[in-house]
Amino acid sequence: MGSNSPFLLAEVTLLSALQMGYLARRVGLSRMAHKVLPPAVTGPPEFERTFRAHQNCVEFYPLFLVTLWTCGMFFNEATAAAAGLVYMIGRQIYFNGYVNSSKKRLPGFFLSLAVLGTLSLLAFLGIMRGILHKYFHIHLD
Amino acid sequence: MGSNSPFLLAEVTLLSALQMGYLARRVGLSRMAHKVLPPAVTGPPEFERTFRAHQNCVEFYPLFLVTLWTCGMFFNEATAAAAGLVYMIGRQIYFNGYVNSSKKRLPGFFLSLAVLGTLSLLAFLGIMRGILHKYFHIHLD
Amino acid sequence: MGSNSPFLLAEVTLLSALQMGYLARRVGLSRMAHKVLPPAVTGPPEFERTFRAHQNCVEFYPLFLVTLWTCGMFFNEATAAAAGLVYMIGRQIYFNGYVNSSKKRLPGFFLSLAVLGTLSLLAFLGIMRGILHKYFHIHLD
Repeated sequence: MGSNSPFLLAEVTLLSALQMGYLARRVGLSRMAHKVLPPAVTGPPEFERTFRAHQNCVEFYPLFLVTLWTCGMFFNEATAAAAGLVYMIGRQIYFNGYVNSSKKRLPGFFLSLAVLGTLSLLAFLGIMRGILHKYFHIHLD
Repeated sequence: MGSNSPFLLAEVTLLSALQMGYLARRVGLSRMAHKVLPPAVTGPPEFERTFRAHQNCVEFYPLFLVTLWTCGMFFNEATAAAAGLVYMIGRQIYFNGYVNSSKKRLPGFFLSLAVLGTLSLLAFLGIMRGILHKYFHIHLD
Repeated sequence: MGSNSPFLLAEVTLLSALQMGYLARRVGLSRMAHKVLPPAVTGPPEFERTFRAHQNCVEFYPLFLVTLWTCGMFFNEATAAAAGLVYMIGRQIYFNGYVNSSKKRLPGFFLSLAVLGTLSLLAFLGIMRGILHKYFHIHLD
């Protein structure tokens, strides 16, 4: 890879994958603590909240990757990478909150949603600029 | 990014991520309508069908992204992007049908499967052509 | 795409997507064999193990894609592609084992985890080398 490679995006992506691995581990530890043996996914409320917290992170992870990379490649890499770190923080607040109580999942969830919305909007602007340039010969910068 | 950037793939990918966000929202609205509080995932049949419809879309989303991008980068971008839009339509038909009844999930499901099969086949042809060219010096075009 | 395109990564990625499709099909066949109609996800123990085995593969699939591609693009393509094939073997051993009994899921699981750890480490080394080079002008090779 040359010097133009998206190292920052790659670094944030790899960190986010490690975070997802860590959250999966937290579910495993919760299984042990509450004696919920696989393949069961029901048990004490705290286990069920931990399980669902992880599932929600899993459901949103591809959306995060898509918006991170489209924003990073078509708008600006450093902006996307920084937003990616904020998303990870939001997800950690979400997960830790949800383990404690269902209501405490909300602040982190809304933070992570705000980041996804921002990444999507910037990605959309960057892609539309490219499409106008390439297919309609309209130059916006 | 230069003019050779895959803007169409990026645009379809971003749209598909927004669709996934919209389907997640539909599950949230169904939770409220049927008073199924997190972390519960069981409840009235319509909620359970809505929940499973979304889960199935989540399960297949990475497969869609992989086949969309391998087809788009190694076979043809416009073909892949158009197929990607058909996949999104298929998934919407699937989701809306499944919410109504389990049987009505099938037409949209088979449409989305047909798109995945087509994207996979074209991606395979494109990649094999590249491998024959690069590693075996066999030129097919 | 030119001759520098990551054909091997693309090929392994496409194969892994086909494997995921195959595992989803196995869940569908298990539904039929055990008469568990959608949207139900509970039933005889073998069905529940099959369902969870697939879910676990789904949960880890984006982590696999991220580590495969960051390792392949920033460390070495052939190494990542080979590791990717080992991951797929690990996941198949995991799935087949889990269908038989919960305990038999462990060997394949640990194999796939070892591959993810290796891919992550090599990807991290490659990305850090790039960041030191690009942003700190430190050349390690």
